Amino acid sequence: MKPINVGLLGIGTVGGGTFTVLKRNEEEITRRAGRPIRITTVADKNLELARKVAGEGVRLTDDAFSVVTDPEIDIVVELIGGYGVARELVLKAIENGKHVVTANKALLAVHGNEIFSAAQKKGVMVAFEAAVAGGIPIIKALREGLTANRIQWLAGIINGTTNFILSEMRDKGLPFADVLKEAQALGYAEADPTFDIEGVDAAHKATIMSAIAFGIPMQFDKAYVEGITKLESADIEYAEQLGYRIKLLGIARKREAGVELRVHPTLIPTKRLIANVEGAMNAVLVQADAVGATLYYGKGAGAEPTASAVIADLVDITRLHTADPEHRVPHLAFQPDQVQDIAVLPIDEVETSYYLRMRVEDKPGVLADITRILADSEISIDAMIQKEPAEGEAQTDIIMLTHLTVERNANAAIARIESLPVVQGKVKRIRLENL
Amino acid sequence: MKPINVGLLGIGTVGGGTFTVLKRNEEEITRRAGRPIRITTVADKNLELARKVAGEGVRLTDDAFSVVTDPEIDIVVELIGGYGVARELVLKAIENGKHVVTANKALLAVHGNEIFSAAQKKGVMVAFEAAVAGGIPIIKALREGLTANRIQWLAGIINGTTNFILSEMRDKGLPFADVLKEAQALGYAEADPTFDIEGVDAAHKATIMSAIAFGIPMQFDKAYVEGITKLESADIEYAEQLGYRIKLLGIARKREAGVELRVHPTLIPTKRLIANVEGAMNAVLVQADAVGATLYYGKGAGAEPTASAVIADLVDITRLHTADPEHRVPHLAFQPDQVQDIAVLPIDEVETSYYLRMRVEDKPGVLADITRILADSEISIDAMIQKEPAEGEAQTDIIMLTHLTVERNANAAIARIESLPVVQGKVKRIRLENL
Repeated sequence: MKPINVGLLGIGTVGGGTFTVLKRNEEEITRRAGRPIRITTVADKNLELARKVAGEGVRLTDDAFSVVTDPEIDIVVELIGGYGVARELVLKAIENGKHVVTANKALLAVHGNEIFSAAQKKGVMVAFEAAVAGGIPIIKALREGLTANRIQWLAGIINGTTNFILSEMRDKGLPFADVLKEAQALGYAEADPTFDIEGVDAAHKATIMSAIAFGIPMQFDKAYVEGITKLESADIEYAEQLGYRIKLLGIARKREAGVELRVHPTLIPTKRLIANVEGAMNAVLVQADAVGATLYYGKGAGAEPTASAVIADLVDITRLHTADPEHRVPHLAFQPDQVQDIAVLPIDEVETSYYLRMRVEDKPGVLADITRILADSEISIDAMIQKEPAEGEAQTDIIMLTHLTVERNANAAIARIESLPVVQGKVKRIRLENL
Repeated sequence: MKPINVGLLGIGTVGGGTFTVLKRNEEEITRRAGRPIRITTVADKNLELARKVAGEGVRLTDDAFSVVTDPEIDIVVELIGGYGVARELVLKAIENGKHVVTANKALLAVHGNEIFSAAQKKGVMVAFEAAVAGGIPIIKALREGLTANRIQWLAGIINGTTNFILSEMRDKGLPFADVLKEAQALGYAEADPTFDIEGVDAAHKATIMSAIAFGIPMQFDKAYVEGITKLESADIEYAEQLGYRIKLLGIARKREAGVELRVHPTLIPTKRLIANVEGAMNAVLVQADAVGATLYYGKGAGAEPTASAVIADLVDITRLHTADPEHRVPHLAFQPDQVQDIAVLPIDEVETSYYLRMRVEDKPGVLADITRILADSEISIDAMIQKEPAEGEAQTDIIMLTHLTVERNANAAIARIESLPVVQGKVKRIRLENL
């Protein structure tokens, strides 16, 4: 059969990996796909690098727009990243009737609705397995594998940089800043790590998963995003003592009133499988009504794991491009006219449990005052540690785990606790999910 | 769009679950699939049960053959089980141009080659996500999600009954026979548990996964199958002391010389995620060249988890049935003319590590004799425990973990060790995989 011609935009880490894997496993992939898949054109500003990676027999250009309008190209793979030129190129490729594969989670989380709507009109596919959790086929699992289910919630460790940092903080008892430097030296964190450590990258991915899990539009602007920069080693240790591990989770949960979409450090019971996902690995736990809980684990980043997802999309498109568009897998798992306008809830309305750490004077009645405030707010306590004050100190730490409550409620109680004269400074608050 | 008409053969546990989930989530499933999927006919010997589960508006019959020849039926779901009438019905359905969904691992592992070949000739699909690991979309992951990869090996906890028994033996220190009775009382084991506890069920599933992972025919008759009936609590405890957990694994590994396909109790390092899969849960770990290790975890049995997989297949077929057959996902992941005749290796040629436990006289020189035999066979020792003899006893246990060796080699060394006069009885041998 006639080969499928692919135009590759951007030959950085993932682009290079895609080239390598497609070449190394050419025979295996063709035996599966039934026809050859060939990268015939590569666009990159760095033509020298492109030449080195792509070798002979591939057209090279520094003009990506010439690729997305090239009538010889069947599928465009966008690996440039960012919202700017990537958005223009993807829309132009769609306009020219090309299928698109992208690993660009920022682009989809922010401009996905516009892109999918354009693709729908043109009858082309936009595939994005590589945008979430690297090589783990989580998009396929959510969109096709669990298609019989009402998905209730999902929770994912979907940023390797922050999971590596949290694992190291716990293992070595080191503060955040030191471990971040180590992660940068090892290549697990970028020179400017803001998007990772502030939770933005995880929120992009959680937004994409929420859309295909619940059949709702991308609503990245409504997501609650809190990173790991303020986590202290002391809290990681206290959590361990209470039988919990702290992970940066991306959570999407469907409730009567709307959808919760949030990224924040979260205590999880240590006995849960997902609590034991360490280092730069990723995992997504999905709770659905028929199948129950399923978990998907693997490498969430890197040249070849991400290339694995890009190529899986290339093969899917190769298979489906002759099918009539109505019978293809819909971009957001649900048919375009069936996507529902369910709002993301403000963080105030989220329901979760809490880990609370407060510094108090070691006096009788302090605990009574605090528990009274919580009881008044109908927040019940699940576990507590009260430390003996250190030698010669008049203050000590109280650590509490609460049962489920609404965040607005918890905030009000915390404000009242902070106003007690015996409580020093702010109450440290980390959310807790039993999963 | 016109609904897809489904004929259901067998309305037992999974059939009932399929009915329930399809009805409960009808709206959600139709929003995804783009057209209604309706069970219009149910065949079961027990018409009274069928009536109770299916309710009004569904044609009931005790003649399954009338369903597979009914021109109104688009897809036949076979949930009868076994190799006998199920095989005839599936082949007859194919002959009549119907797509087939089945959860029948025994049928596919034993007669899969014949069935897929018949389906290929007729241009129909046979889907079987429910045949392996219940609701976990592992068939889809192997066949589509990891399509860019050369799969190197996979190892799965793919039988919930035996995993439940092993978890209980470890937790409670009880012998196999007691825990089996408990499992039967709880409904985790059948009245005749042979297929589960002897490893046959796991071998059916491992056979199916080996075929789609490597693009080879089903070769169930070549699989090595060893169950858990001879496992002793002492070995579970010694394994724990050495940092390992014992699981019944189904393993498929591609080697230069052929494919290893084997089911047996296996020591796995406790720190591996898969070692922590407890109770009746299933998990499959896949090692592939581009993506690295990925793991898939969830419920491997039960009415609704299995129904989740059956319905995912129904939706897939609904989507693909209008595509030309060349562009569908091939039954064995590879195009039919690309399935390779790679032989399954005899167990003698398998490469693995070993846990060895032997009862010896507590005399000087015993250990030297044993280690000399292992050294002669070029088997190196990774770890060892020599117990102090119990008060008043002249004998003691030696436990050894070896590095990788060929099974034939290990067998020869074990025979020589057993022939030493200071060694009592047989050497207990359990295979070990570092994964």
